[in-house]
Amino acid sequence: MSDIKLKGWEIVRFKEGTSSFLDEEVAEEFPLTVMLNGEEFATIVCSPSDLHDLLVGFLASEGIIRFYNEVKQIRIEEDRGFAYIEITKPIDQYQHDHSKRFIGSCCGKSRQFYFKSDVKTAKTITSRLTITVDQCFALMKQLQTQSEQFIRTGGVHNAALANTDELLVVRTDIGRHNALDKIYGHILKERIRRADKLIVFSGRISSEVLLKISKIGTGILISKSAPTDLALKLAHDLGITVIGFARGHKMNVYTHPYRIIEANR
Amino acid sequence: MSDIKLKGWEIVRFKEGTSSFLDEEVAEEFPLTVMLNGEEFATIVCSPSDLHDLLVGFLASEGIIRFYNEVKQIRIEEDRGFAYIEITKPIDQYQHDHSKRFIGSCCGKSRQFYFKSDVKTAKTITSRLTITVDQCFALMKQLQTQSEQFIRTGGVHNAALANTDELLVVRTDIGRHNALDKIYGHILKERIRRADKLIVFSGRISSEVLLKISKIGTGILISKSAPTDLALKLAHDLGITVIGFARGHKMNVYTHPYRIIEANR
Repeated sequence: MSDIKLKGWEIVRFKEGTSSFLDEEVAEEFPLTVMLNGEEFATIVCSPSDLHDLLVGFLASEGIIRFYNEVKQIRIEEDRGFAYIEITKPIDQYQHDHSKRFIGSCCGKSRQFYFKSDVKTAKTITSRLTITVDQCFALMKQLQTQSEQFIRTGGVHNAALANTDELLVVRTDIGRHNALDKIYGHILKERIRRADKLIVFSGRISSEVLLKISKIGTGILISKSAPTDLALKLAHDLGITVIGFARGHKMNVYTHPYRIIEANR
Repeated sequence: MSDIKLKGWEIVRFKEGTSSFLDEEVAEEFPLTVMLNGEEFATIVCSPSDLHDLLVGFLASEGIIRFYNEVKQIRIEEDRGFAYIEITKPIDQYQHDHSKRFIGSCCGKSRQFYFKSDVKTAKTITSRLTITVDQCFALMKQLQTQSEQFIRTGGVHNAALANTDELLVVRTDIGRHNALDKIYGHILKERIRRADKLIVFSGRISSEVLLKISKIGTGILISKSAPTDLALKLAHDLGITVIGFARGHKMNVYTHPYRIIEANR
């Protein structure tokens, strides 16, 4: 798994009537300011690992790029917390559309698409990948086994790209969106085929997470956490199988259960 | 506690080798577009409860207002998901400062203040409030007892304003920042004194959460979750006592333990 940094911090622990001074480890939180084509674009607060993947995934999630070849250059000055990115096209149009709410049905898609940029990039998933219940349980167990930092600090999220048998790439971050962006960036850089892959995730499934899965282009999302109603409506519309509360030998399938082999028996 | 809506959703549950069709409840996710002085300002994705508190707290967290009397009017069209807000001052200056990173020390404050708007609004807390360890445990237990929605859906966060004896106001949201903003808005509207109060919270303590606590103006934050290193540096600089991992009869005090009565013995 990707290695994120932990920082020592002196604490007082109170437990069952006793107190003790201890050195604890906490997750590092790192502000990375993105300069895009020479202009300050955003500051991402993240775990300082896999920053190149994070930046590529972030640009794609934001609808700035669709392919890695639209990135001309990425230069990261980690000690100052700045990233300088050059992309091939101007960013004017983005500034105009970004965060503008979009209401009404369009392109046959649901009115839940409330950001204009999402209407352009979200796509219906037609992946024919299928998976067994036990494979789902095994993948989530792999994610939890590899989540050493979470066990030690309680403060990070994990996202993984997987096939039905094993996790292929695991990324970690204090932000669940960043963890997914790090996976997305890796996929774009390595031009990984998505139709036969799925995403395994530790975080809650909001509409924003679901739209990110749609952009990434995998047909199955497995999470140990809960989904929201809006995420499920989008998943229904976009053809994504959402599995939530995957814990131990239990899981809930919320949408498109046809990709679960046992659901068709 | 504040009442948030749950939505029914039909699922397939796989558990220990069996499958069953069930009606589950999931948390509602509601996009609320904020029109500020006639211009589209932001879309908040939230739980649709206590929206008036949320909007006031959101404006204050963003540095748009400092007092409730700067709000001339708030009109919410909940069925369309729009809020129309009129404030007394123009918002031009905000647009310029917002999200611009600020580096270097200023006003005697730490260089971790990386947004210009935070430098203006974050303040050092001088509250002399003290609390016992058992009072901390009892407050967290109250928050968890009242978190019925969390138990049912696993998908919401809670924030509460409390004195040392009991929770005074509890607010719930799918977003941890929104839950805090709902508390902040309530405090501003009711002009509640903060020096003798504290915040009890279910979510992780990032730098953004910590800055929000500093703006709210309470000296103690108790959370059941983990802090980041940057949040702790800010808490150290701003005089805020951070208590994390408060679960059962255990808690970690990360900063300014002098407000914990047992730490001074």
